[in-house]
Amino acid sequence: MADQYAQTLGENRPAGIPAIRWEEPPEGPVLVLLDQTRLPAEEVELVCTDAPALVDAIRSLAVRGAPLLGIAGAYGVALAAARGFDVDDAADALAGARPTAVNLSVGAHRARSAYQAALAETGDPGQAAAAALTAARKVHEEDAEASGRLAEHGLSLLDELLPGGGHRILTHCNTGALVSGAEGTAFAVALAAHRVGRLRRLWVDETRPLLQGARLTAYEAARNDMAYTLLTDSAAGSLFAAGEVDAVLVGADRIAADGSLANKVGTYPLAVLARYHHVPFIVVAPLTTVDLETADASAIEVEQRPSYEVTELIAPQMPVTGAGGGIPVAPLGTQAYNPAFDVTPPELVTAIVTEEGTLSPVTGEGLAELCGRGRKAKEG
Amino acid sequence: MADQYAQTLGENRPAGIPAIRWEEPPEGPVLVLLDQTRLPAEEVELVCTDAPALVDAIRSLAVRGAPLLGIAGAYGVALAAARGFDVDDAADALAGARPTAVNLSVGAHRARSAYQAALAETGDPGQAAAAALTAARKVHEEDAEASGRLAEHGLSLLDELLPGGGHRILTHCNTGALVSGAEGTAFAVALAAHRVGRLRRLWVDETRPLLQGARLTAYEAARNDMAYTLLTDSAAGSLFAAGEVDAVLVGADRIAADGSLANKVGTYPLAVLARYHHVPFIVVAPLTTVDLETADASAIEVEQRPSYEVTELIAPQMPVTGAGGGIPVAPLGTQAYNPAFDVTPPELVTAIVTEEGTLSPVTGEGLAELCGRGRKAKEG
Repeated sequence: MADQYAQTLGENRPAGIPAIRWEEPPEGPVLVLLDQTRLPAEEVELVCTDAPALVDAIRSLAVRGAPLLGIAGAYGVALAAARGFDVDDAADALAGARPTAVNLSVGAHRARSAYQAALAETGDPGQAAAAALTAARKVHEEDAEASGRLAEHGLSLLDELLPGGGHRILTHCNTGALVSGAEGTAFAVALAAHRVGRLRRLWVDETRPLLQGARLTAYEAARNDMAYTLLTDSAAGSLFAAGEVDAVLVGADRIAADGSLANKVGTYPLAVLARYHHVPFIVVAPLTTVDLETADASAIEVEQRPSYEVTELIAPQMPVTGAGGGIPVAPLGTQAYNPAFDVTPPELVTAIVTEEGTLSPVTGEGLAELCGRGRKAKEG
Repeated sequence: MADQYAQTLGENRPAGIPAIRWEEPPEGPVLVLLDQTRLPAEEVELVCTDAPALVDAIRSLAVRGAPLLGIAGAYGVALAAARGFDVDDAADALAGARPTAVNLSVGAHRARSAYQAALAETGDPGQAAAAALTAARKVHEEDAEASGRLAEHGLSLLDELLPGGGHRILTHCNTGALVSGAEGTAFAVALAAHRVGRLRRLWVDETRPLLQGARLTAYEAARNDMAYTLLTDSAAGSLFAAGEVDAVLVGADRIAADGSLANKVGTYPLAVLARYHHVPFIVVAPLTTVDLETADASAIEVEQRPSYEVTELIAPQMPVTGAGGGIPVAPLGTQAYNPAFDVTPPELVTAIVTEEGTLSPVTGEGLAELCGRGRKAKEG
């Protein structure tokens, strides 16, 4: 069973529409997602009543972005528990829905552990479900809190690296409120710079093939009245060459123990361009994105997505004609190489900004230390 | 007046449908173009009966690609002459239709010079028009001949640089028969490698925003039974990192006297990636693309195209909804930075392959010498 339905939001919906929320209507608890595949054309919420529905939403990218996937994974387990479904099945399905963002499995694991501990202690599935929900809410709150500190640390770093102000920042994919319990990662830093009047321009990579930059980052930039300009991913080269980029800010989907990081495909070419042009390349990510179990780049599994995302043009309001629901642009039978992510080695990264502080240069030792600090902060 | 009409080709059209041809039906001479904006969905020819119609076709990219623009420019002047329109007006309008590809103005100029010389000599506009047509046919033939020699020189260079064979070649935009009097420039080299069994894979960049790679290069690769794989432009980074690219082959729209070159936007990031990964970056272009009057990169005018090419998804068979005729994907009012070309400096170019031989390393002196050799070959 994969039970979900859509509800269109009226004109009067709040400006800060959350990417995810838990609700408890009389029919039983549900997880409500803002359907990101339909933005910016339509603001539609997707209501999930069980974990398989959420797995579908994760696979179709209705809900996406590393931090948000962590939150969704935790709530999904809580939902299965609250609805009386098998919690282990739900946690496994959620953790495996997409392979690259480590946050997803970490989130699902935390809610499952809380459920299991409470069940062992009380023997009461109801109390165990409540414990899973408490754990999910904690993941959500921690991410919101981390987002605020990422913005703070990121802004300090920008001011340090670019003392002149008037930052022209290039970003890729979408890393704002849509992926976060609060205002996101890399985007939150740009937004913080905007709020203190130090953002001159946000260059927004459209981010092929699914255009999260054009559809989502431009949408968030417009809503926040930021000065932004959209560009095709490969037009970034001309901007670097013209000296129009002061810093690159991106998020991450998984950071390995050595500081290698997977992020949306197209990140690595930006890192190479930034290095060639001596422009700071800054990664902004909560420590939940760091996976010390993943040794290095070679251990990161990169999700390969279907050809039709490249061979067809896909927009939410588009008539369905091709196999992927879009309009074919390449000859029939064309195969595409379509990795969702690429991997950037630590030597190309100027700094990784986390909620526990900024790591620069990026080393395995430094990363392990930050993670230790993060654990202590949570325990303390 | 801009007089053109479309004719759909039947199922029985020849496999090697020419990108451009001159015809003389009873109603008077016309220039027939394969409408490249509608490929690969439909094979439609555009029949131009005057130069303004051709200017429109050039601006809309129905006809495009540096060598083909040279041929089109020459035929366009011949068409104006044959139809009794003002030849200078036509030549000026054609030469200015797009600013970056130098071939366009060179082609128009050659036909106009032939017209003027014949008119001065004979005083007969009919004979002058015939001279313009002869000049246009010569531009066409020379390009076809150059294409064959580009393929030959390019293949030798590949064999020299990559003695193992089994070439995995990455290309950008479209540089095949659709832009040429014969089989094109960079694509012709890949095709030559394919014919001798030495092409293992052609990696085809989709080439945003107008997808000439997905629509046109994939179409030409499929027709020639080449092993090809499509990718988003920024996925090229992962291929380089994985050691899956043996060489990059691209064309050029203008080569300045110092060897700097303008080509489709996205070329420069590939050049930087190729350098970072020690992969040969090879430019294949006829000498008509070299403009010794353009001193260097700073003197190359890069055409800026409208925002809607980025903010809307545009496919030939798509219902018209946005300002540019496509489906909006970014928020209304979004501005895009949309240069049609970028500029690659000579130090990032391993070699420039011309019909007169291969230049490596790329220097201004070497380029001037090749151009001199080319002039002598034409005169002799």
